[in-house]
Amino acid sequence: MTITITAFERSPDGGKGLARDTRVRWALEEVGQSYEVRLVSFQAMKEPAHMALHPFGQIPTYEEGHLALFETGSIVFHLAERHAGLLPVDADARARAITWMFAAVNTVEPPILDLVTVKILEGDKPWSKERLPLVQDRVRGRLKQLSVRLGSAEWLDGEFSAGDLMMVSVLLRSRPSGLLDEYSNLAAYVARGEARPAYQRAFAAQLAINTRTPQPDGHPR
Amino acid sequence: MTITITAFERSPDGGKGLARDTRVRWALEEVGQSYEVRLVSFQAMKEPAHMALHPFGQIPTYEEGHLALFETGSIVFHLAERHAGLLPVDADARARAITWMFAAVNTVEPPILDLVTVKILEGDKPWSKERLPLVQDRVRGRLKQLSVRLGSAEWLDGEFSAGDLMMVSVLLRSRPSGLLDEYSNLAAYVARGEARPAYQRAFAAQLAINTRTPQPDGHPR
Repeated sequence: MTITITAFERSPDGGKGLARDTRVRWALEEVGQSYEVRLVSFQAMKEPAHMALHPFGQIPTYEEGHLALFETGSIVFHLAERHAGLLPVDADARARAITWMFAAVNTVEPPILDLVTVKILEGDKPWSKERLPLVQDRVRGRLKQLSVRLGSAEWLDGEFSAGDLMMVSVLLRSRPSGLLDEYSNLAAYVARGEARPAYQRAFAAQLAINTRTPQPDGHPR
Repeated sequence: MTITITAFERSPDGGKGLARDTRVRWALEEVGQSYEVRLVSFQAMKEPAHMALHPFGQIPTYEEGHLALFETGSIVFHLAERHAGLLPVDADARARAITWMFAAVNTVEPPILDLVTVKILEGDKPWSKERLPLVQDRVRGRLKQLSVRLGSAEWLDGEFSAGDLMMVSVLLRSRPSGLLDEYSNLAAYVARGEARPAYQRAFAAQLAINTRTPQPDGHPR
């Protein structure tokens, strides 16, 4: 059955791989599933056809026959459950890997996304400059706790899992701020994720889209 | 095997059921599993014994024999996977229910928690009052999208599922702000969740702890 995901027609990061389609591409590459991509403009993301697939008007979505999913955690889990390689076979280890998936999106990602809120969304507000250090310190608080837990381990719990895939993807979003590099074991952990061939293929695929030459109508082809 | 969860010795909400142990208690009640509770003080949450269970120093945690989990999404999923009643049997419906679990903690909860940031954490900052309407509007944005998707349905996707359990729990946290009641179908959805006998038992159990009489040493007994 053909798998189709959606991605930004033009990613706000210009191809740095920080948009959320990258983590779904990565999971698809890890489990060896081919997929098609439907590109969506910012405008189309808020129109009924896309909102029917994604009630919050975001990317990515995932379609496979009659099944339509959104939320990267859910899509990555769906793939991990149906294909070997992203979740341990042992029941307890599997439950812990799923714990890290939720920790990535619920506990680590929100403070990192607040950096975007304070710098971009509220960048023109009079409080932006004074508020930034508070937000940065909250990110540091989370990164420090994660750094302590990871210690000198290669991955968060034994072998590489969907928990690492999600956590590395989320941590990548803290790198442009410089905060990730304050925690050398986390920076090395992220680099190990990026070095995986499946990540490399996922990154290259999103980059190819985001570095196409714009056409006269303003849309890249 | 005995199941033990952790909860606040004294919840910051004084027993309104908004602390995260309530959703785990609710799931345990839905699947008919008895459990024990170990209460943790704010100080003890940051000490090594608790940090070994929860690397981010929060509650709840979940222990069952040798298995130790954190993150409510992961704990609720663990219970839903092992007991009937919280996830559909049909594979596609199950994947969609899991999608709603992730949507609750990754997409709907973060803007709602920002209300706490702006009102409490940054309540003494000069920008707090001016920033509040921006944060409220972001919550409204999400609630409106969810309201549109829910429409006149009873639950988010067919029968009540772990996705509803998580979403109702997250939405409850927006009620003190008054924002939930701006969306009548969401307010009714949350009320349907609260009316479930399993929720009632979970709520009563956390309330009993949080309304005990403090002893001379300042700790409730």
